[in-house]
Amino acid sequence: MLKIDGIAASPGVAIAPAFILENPDFTVHHREVSDPEAELIRLDEALSKSQQELENIKERTLQELGEKKAEIFESHLLILNDPDLITTVRDRITTEKVSAEYAMNVTAQEFIAMFENMKSAYLRERAVDMRDITKRVLIHLLGLTYVNPMEIDKEVIVIAEDLTPSDTAQLNRKYVKGFAANVGGRTSHSAIMARSLEIPAVVGTKEVLGQVKNGDLIIVDGLDGKVIINPTSDLVEEYKEKRDKHLQQIEEWKQLRGVATTSADGVHVELAANIGTPNDVTGVVENGGEGVGLYRSEFLYMGRTELPSEEVQFNAYKTVLEKMEGKPVVVRTLDIGGDKELPYLDMPKEMNPFLGFRAIRLCLERQDIFRTQLRALLRASVYGNLRIMFPMIATLDEFRQAKALLLEEKANLESEGVTISDTIQLGIMVEIPSTAVLADQFAKEVDFFSIGTNDLIQYTMAADRMNERVSYLYQPYNPAILRLVKMVIDAAHKEGRWVGMCGEMAGDATAIPLLLGLGLDEFSMSATSILPARSQIAKLSKADMQKLAAEALQLGTAEEVVQLVRNIKA
Amino acid sequence: MLKIDGIAASPGVAIAPAFILENPDFTVHHREVSDPEAELIRLDEALSKSQQELENIKERTLQELGEKKAEIFESHLLILNDPDLITTVRDRITTEKVSAEYAMNVTAQEFIAMFENMKSAYLRERAVDMRDITKRVLIHLLGLTYVNPMEIDKEVIVIAEDLTPSDTAQLNRKYVKGFAANVGGRTSHSAIMARSLEIPAVVGTKEVLGQVKNGDLIIVDGLDGKVIINPTSDLVEEYKEKRDKHLQQIEEWKQLRGVATTSADGVHVELAANIGTPNDVTGVVENGGEGVGLYRSEFLYMGRTELPSEEVQFNAYKTVLEKMEGKPVVVRTLDIGGDKELPYLDMPKEMNPFLGFRAIRLCLERQDIFRTQLRALLRASVYGNLRIMFPMIATLDEFRQAKALLLEEKANLESEGVTISDTIQLGIMVEIPSTAVLADQFAKEVDFFSIGTNDLIQYTMAADRMNERVSYLYQPYNPAILRLVKMVIDAAHKEGRWVGMCGEMAGDATAIPLLLGLGLDEFSMSATSILPARSQIAKLSKADMQKLAAEALQLGTAEEVVQLVRNIKA
Repeated sequence: MLKIDGIAASPGVAIAPAFILENPDFTVHHREVSDPEAELIRLDEALSKSQQELENIKERTLQELGEKKAEIFESHLLILNDPDLITTVRDRITTEKVSAEYAMNVTAQEFIAMFENMKSAYLRERAVDMRDITKRVLIHLLGLTYVNPMEIDKEVIVIAEDLTPSDTAQLNRKYVKGFAANVGGRTSHSAIMARSLEIPAVVGTKEVLGQVKNGDLIIVDGLDGKVIINPTSDLVEEYKEKRDKHLQQIEEWKQLRGVATTSADGVHVELAANIGTPNDVTGVVENGGEGVGLYRSEFLYMGRTELPSEEVQFNAYKTVLEKMEGKPVVVRTLDIGGDKELPYLDMPKEMNPFLGFRAIRLCLERQDIFRTQLRALLRASVYGNLRIMFPMIATLDEFRQAKALLLEEKANLESEGVTISDTIQLGIMVEIPSTAVLADQFAKEVDFFSIGTNDLIQYTMAADRMNERVSYLYQPYNPAILRLVKMVIDAAHKEGRWVGMCGEMAGDATAIPLLLGLGLDEFSMSATSILPARSQIAKLSKADMQKLAAEALQLGTAEEVVQLVRNIKA
Repeated sequence: MLKIDGIAASPGVAIAPAFILENPDFTVHHREVSDPEAELIRLDEALSKSQQELENIKERTLQELGEKKAEIFESHLLILNDPDLITTVRDRITTEKVSAEYAMNVTAQEFIAMFENMKSAYLRERAVDMRDITKRVLIHLLGLTYVNPMEIDKEVIVIAEDLTPSDTAQLNRKYVKGFAANVGGRTSHSAIMARSLEIPAVVGTKEVLGQVKNGDLIIVDGLDGKVIINPTSDLVEEYKEKRDKHLQQIEEWKQLRGVATTSADGVHVELAANIGTPNDVTGVVENGGEGVGLYRSEFLYMGRTELPSEEVQFNAYKTVLEKMEGKPVVVRTLDIGGDKELPYLDMPKEMNPFLGFRAIRLCLERQDIFRTQLRALLRASVYGNLRIMFPMIATLDEFRQAKALLLEEKANLESEGVTISDTIQLGIMVEIPSTAVLADQFAKEVDFFSIGTNDLIQYTMAADRMNERVSYLYQPYNPAILRLVKMVIDAAHKEGRWVGMCGEMAGDATAIPLLLGLGLDEFSMSATSILPARSQIAKLSKADMQKLAAEALQLGTAEEVVQLVRNIKA
């Protein structure tokens, strides 16, 4: 028996024999040929086999996952049939007298390089598709033995280095009970696909592929991020129980859709969702969200070649407000910069982009961009319950400047005869330590706070959470972080303001008891976390959690805090 | 009259007519020649004139500024006489039949590129020297009119775009009363030279060169970073007073060398110095430093091709401890990474180096490096009053791990029969917000804190202080920063620990009243700031400053804090 830790990528528990899905060796050597005509025939055969496969996968994806996911393979088919690609490969075979695989590979690399250099993020992503297609064609040309995951016909756990989008889509839910991969993170493509397919998955295990033989009995624990190879029969029983409990819990959660979120001792808190686009509202409603706690407006600015117009923005905000039917919608104004670039803005390279010219800093300088967004928001305000918040506020001056611009645009619109809601709340993200420390001063001027833990933790610990060498310092449970959260909540309540949280921490089962105890009013999380959180809170007494939180604030390390919460839960 | 703001680069006030030192146009075009022999003669003449000039400058520098500064020109002479350089230029003239200036320029650019690609930082700096030399030779070859600053023979203020090292060294202190430049910062070469020469200077004015005519009356206010062009006679009188007051103050400060630092109401605080090398101790002693509050040990690791041995380090620490004759010496263990790279460590590029793998984070992983330093420190401890502190501590775990390594090495050395002082204090830098917020927990385990404001401010405000677009957020007087400082001091005093500060803020005249009021025990600053700070503190009542600080903590913005301190000072 061997236990391997990884990243919990898709919830649930699966128990089945291993099925190893290994990438064959795609190395292609330069090879001259005497008969180019024969190579052209081999190429055509490989292309037509690939075409057939892709059509099968597309069809199956359409049936099992819907139109949206099937589009990936529609675009694969388009690329495979691109006359430019095929003509270039054919020309190369005849003029350079090289093998079909060599011509295909060299040409594909050129196309990949071209896609990768595109200004448009959409076109850059086509490089990933091109890689996937190239492998598919090369399998046939190189005569590689490669078990098609579509052909799996008994219950298995798929074990792989990583899964490509086509691998994942080919997994048959009936037989593939779970998967474990050596690489990947919670937001990698394979993790996202696994969650859509509702297949338990653990990724980033580093070594599972090297440790498993075909047929080994495997437990994939997608709840706690563990893979167990050849477990004892006692352990199998234990995990079967865990699996059943999880399935039962899913049913239980579904009952909570229309229910308000209330603690065991009857205190109501609000569970809202983080969204990126108006389409995401469907998920919020389905999962019983009591509002949108964070609408990341920057998605409106991405994947295009110029700034979105006031009209485009107005329509997006209006749609979200209307779909939420009077429930609160907190829109965060443009948070661009840092790791989020807009190619058409031509922002200068920075030495430390996370400590750089981003979000409100950029908006206060590029007032043209900011005023357009504020106007769109103000105009949309009459269609629902709008709340506006500014990101990356570090000083009172910044908030005052941003508020002044909002009031100016409000006056402008009113003089144009536009009706604007007079109940718009105006708040800020608390994601910079200075603002948490000075929250009592801010609380006199804002309507609400939303604590952005992803950035707040990163700045408080001075550790880039994207940098693997220091990611151990990204510690949501560090007592220093809890103390800052407490400062913000206490300061807000003293002035009669409410406090939300919209970082990953708000939906985290270990953090929720602490946050409830600290007095958080609104928890905003991914829509799929809402029902589990509601179920968890219903079992917690706020009064008890207050004692728990008070104790946690006096501890020295994150580990001690986690231990404290575990003891209560047990 | 026109007032221009800039950066105060060297203290004092100077009033004199402008002398514009403009860089001539060094553009060199490709020019073929029919008589290469004539070009070789022109080259020899230009080289020999340059040689003569450099020898004169070197001699003068030696007399006026000492051997260390004269070495710059010694290395210029070595480069000028480099046979490789001269042979390449001569060959180019004869084989390519081009003008001497073209051959010189092209060859020099090749050498500059070569130097810039060197692994050694020392050799890379030679690129700057090569540029300087090339200009000197081209002046003669292009027949440019260029007034040599050496030839100035009446009192002037030099106005320039920037000053090269040779320009600055050629300034005659008798006649050059001050200077103002368009570019540069407090740590640019010209600023450092101006401070050595004790010439008032303002740099980074952006526009002074474009605004001034030769002979305009100029005031250079190196105390407040202002340049005034053609001032009114009233203003001239005012600045003469300011100048005299400053000169008088310098005399007054000199009287304070051997005196302990005491507030007006009789409270003693310690004024220590920040140093980089054992040589800097002379300046500490001359300026009456009561200790070394920060010995930046990373300088020992820079400018070399491999890690410094235990012996090299031991000798450096021993020298500093002995020279300080029992006064406390706080050595900060290796703080590398971030913006400070060691070429021989081959560290990976990071997206956000300031939030990356640096200082204690690196030392806890590269224990080989860290243990060597700890051994050298422990062995040196018997030669004086050693205090050790760890940089970039973000969690209690890190401190505990670092302390455990220190104790291990102590035990190892003792088992080898080495004597180690048993009064070494062990402390940490407080430069990460989490550590300030959790200072009460740290105070139970450390002997002292030293607040590193440069980084603490940068992380607390989430703004890279080197990034000009957000440097307005580098706010030492922001109430959030003052509150964090207070948290650290209160937590330390409760456990009977002392607190120092070794960022730039500790020597800042506006911050000193606040820091005294907050209860700071030790102020560590550049040696030249010690006497002014001692003089300032002697005039302040700590009891009054406590009230001032309490008021500042309740303000909302940095501007309000500055205003509050100004009112007290006025």
